Amino acid sequence: MTSEEIKDQVYDMGKKARAAALALAILSEKKKNEILLAMAGGIRNAAPQILEANGRDIAAGEERGLTSAMLDRLRLDPDRLEAVAAGVEKVATLPDPVGEILSEWDRPNGIQIQQLRVPIGVIGIIYESRPNVTSDAAVLCLKSGNATILRGGSEAIHSNRALADALQAGGERAGLPEGAIQLIPFTDRESVAVMAGMDKYLDLIIPRGGKGLIETVVSLARMPVIKHYDGICHAYIHSEADLEMAVKIVVDSKTQKPSVCNALETLLVDEALAEQFLPMVAAVLSAKDVELRGDEATRKMIEAKAATEEDWSTEYLDDILAIKVVPSMQAAIDHINEYSSQHTEVIVTKNREMADAFLSQIDSACVFHNVSTRFSDGEEFGFGAEIGISTDKLHARGPMGLRELTSYQYRVRGEGQVKA
Amino acid sequence: MTSEEIKDQVYDMGKKARAAALALAILSEKKKNEILLAMAGGIRNAAPQILEANGRDIAAGEERGLTSAMLDRLRLDPDRLEAVAAGVEKVATLPDPVGEILSEWDRPNGIQIQQLRVPIGVIGIIYESRPNVTSDAAVLCLKSGNATILRGGSEAIHSNRALADALQAGGERAGLPEGAIQLIPFTDRESVAVMAGMDKYLDLIIPRGGKGLIETVVSLARMPVIKHYDGICHAYIHSEADLEMAVKIVVDSKTQKPSVCNALETLLVDEALAEQFLPMVAAVLSAKDVELRGDEATRKMIEAKAATEEDWSTEYLDDILAIKVVPSMQAAIDHINEYSSQHTEVIVTKNREMADAFLSQIDSACVFHNVSTRFSDGEEFGFGAEIGISTDKLHARGPMGLRELTSYQYRVRGEGQVKA
Repeated sequence: MTSEEIKDQVYDMGKKARAAALALAILSEKKKNEILLAMAGGIRNAAPQILEANGRDIAAGEERGLTSAMLDRLRLDPDRLEAVAAGVEKVATLPDPVGEILSEWDRPNGIQIQQLRVPIGVIGIIYESRPNVTSDAAVLCLKSGNATILRGGSEAIHSNRALADALQAGGERAGLPEGAIQLIPFTDRESVAVMAGMDKYLDLIIPRGGKGLIETVVSLARMPVIKHYDGICHAYIHSEADLEMAVKIVVDSKTQKPSVCNALETLLVDEALAEQFLPMVAAVLSAKDVELRGDEATRKMIEAKAATEEDWSTEYLDDILAIKVVPSMQAAIDHINEYSSQHTEVIVTKNREMADAFLSQIDSACVFHNVSTRFSDGEEFGFGAEIGISTDKLHARGPMGLRELTSYQYRVRGEGQVKA
Repeated sequence: MTSEEIKDQVYDMGKKARAAALALAILSEKKKNEILLAMAGGIRNAAPQILEANGRDIAAGEERGLTSAMLDRLRLDPDRLEAVAAGVEKVATLPDPVGEILSEWDRPNGIQIQQLRVPIGVIGIIYESRPNVTSDAAVLCLKSGNATILRGGSEAIHSNRALADALQAGGERAGLPEGAIQLIPFTDRESVAVMAGMDKYLDLIIPRGGKGLIETVVSLARMPVIKHYDGICHAYIHSEADLEMAVKIVVDSKTQKPSVCNALETLLVDEALAEQFLPMVAAVLSAKDVELRGDEATRKMIEAKAATEEDWSTEYLDDILAIKVVPSMQAAIDHINEYSSQHTEVIVTKNREMADAFLSQIDSACVFHNVSTRFSDGEEFGFGAEIGISTDKLHARGPMGLRELTSYQYRVRGEGQVKA
């Protein structure tokens, strides 16, 4: 395809999505739920085609030498596909955020002001290998009244196309507006740049994938981007911590699922209890094969590799933990505000006052007291579903559910009030 | 200055602002108000220096041939400067948004979740000639706990420097953290590009000025930008409108202050009452020297110039009104969703049900029923002050007050809960 053809096709999708967004904005909750259930049915009906398409992606991936972890992320099987369909049905059970009155008040001149939740409009999702994102992102956007333009990675293109076809075919039977869910059917890199420049038709882009993808989108985008960057999460063990609780929280935060963004990466230990605490936690972590990298003070108390400056700003996503002994809570706060990716940090202490002081001085999306970092998650927060965890501070911060996929509108009513 | 020097200096300001933001985030409301009052005093103390500096800007402007409108925007006199100081004092009386609990709930596992309003961090303000923006923007950001980096236009550089010096000198006496309010002291164009790339230190940029400035910032910025684009505002006179009310609202919306973004630019008249209504409204508007530009149907009923396609998407900010006769409410809605800048639109009708249908189908920040568009304003909404009117849909939409200058943080408390 030529650049012109790519641009024309993507802009044409944008125009259709904008029209669909206006139709979606006024669909009732009941109608949207009917569409969602029909979409789940669409996936189940098309299971043979989707699995066949996925088989082609897997074969191509094997040929291109993808790692087994990458192939696993790419693979769909009947159980996984059923989970995707069930996920669509679950979104139908979640409350519709659209139409919620956020605030309302009257002015002295008698005009009545209402701030009401409305959809954002058209959301672009640019993502990498996992084909389930095609369905997850599209249905969350749909439930919140938004149209989507999906742009998946080349590894999953056959699976993505089959899934999008199934969602559309199912949804259209129940009245899904045309253009509400569209997948860019080719994977030319240029399509990302075209989307990023299409601010007339796209209100928001959410990139889901590695740092390289996010960087590319950020540097090109003319519209807002909600970023889901690294989770360099910290735990600070305060001088008044319950040591057994501290061990439990550190071990859970680090080892319960090390490959995710809310896993612990750096442990800060107050020097007041370091000599007692470090051997306790090191024993459990070492038994779980976690590699420890410590600063000089740490390495005087336990066996650990030497941590370098780079370790403090690395998201391992692996069985590795950086450890530093700090002289005070202030030193812990300073370290976190310097190196954290502003995702999730936890303090362990029995002193509620100190905990409150810590929480209020940390500039991160989620600040925890005596809780594992692994609870920094839309499901765990009770949102029912999650489109990601924003490390941005504008519009949405931390776990993003359906409400975070909405904007608002002021509706003002009067009886002929004028200013003159 | 070389590019390197500009970059170094702006980055150095960014670093200082980041440190100041952490200090500002935990200042009490009382302390912030003391600082604001001291800043107002700072302006009054430095009045001779500020007026002298402004005199130099005016002289330079005259030499450069600025229009009298531009010179007027630039000019400070003792009354205007007193209004600036009084504006600072007024912000001290507004409620502090920081610390407000937006929501809180407990999870079945016993963890307690609080969503709490916090400052955004560091806000960059890039603006053009009006020197009062230096003070207005800085104090609104300060009250909401944010540090600011201000970058004003070259026409007002002496006034801006003198104002920023006065704010800092006054504020520091009351404990304003160093680096909380900083003005870039030079006006090289490159400083805008440096700010736009400095996402490590700037959480948000708000450009205040013409379309060209906003476009430049949007195309360069790596961080969120809240845009205040045009107001191409529409009034739709529905078939069941009270004609006298409709005349009153149209005349007020168009003529009460034509130079502002919430002034009316396009009038859509339902064909059911066009023949009766158009002569009524045209008589009043013509008496007020408003130039009318109508479509073919309009020009059969009243005297008007021929409107071109361009008129439907023009923000006149002047005594000009585009007029179109529409066959139905749906046609009015379609016209607005096609041409509007999503700022403010109004329907005039006695039929509440039709009004509700109109309001819910218009994708604009503010939708009004039987109210002049001139009420689309932070002061009129009761916000006490306004940093602008956002035409964006993310984070802040419509009039922006102090709350719109904040983000939120999740604070989670538990008793050692872990996920494993």
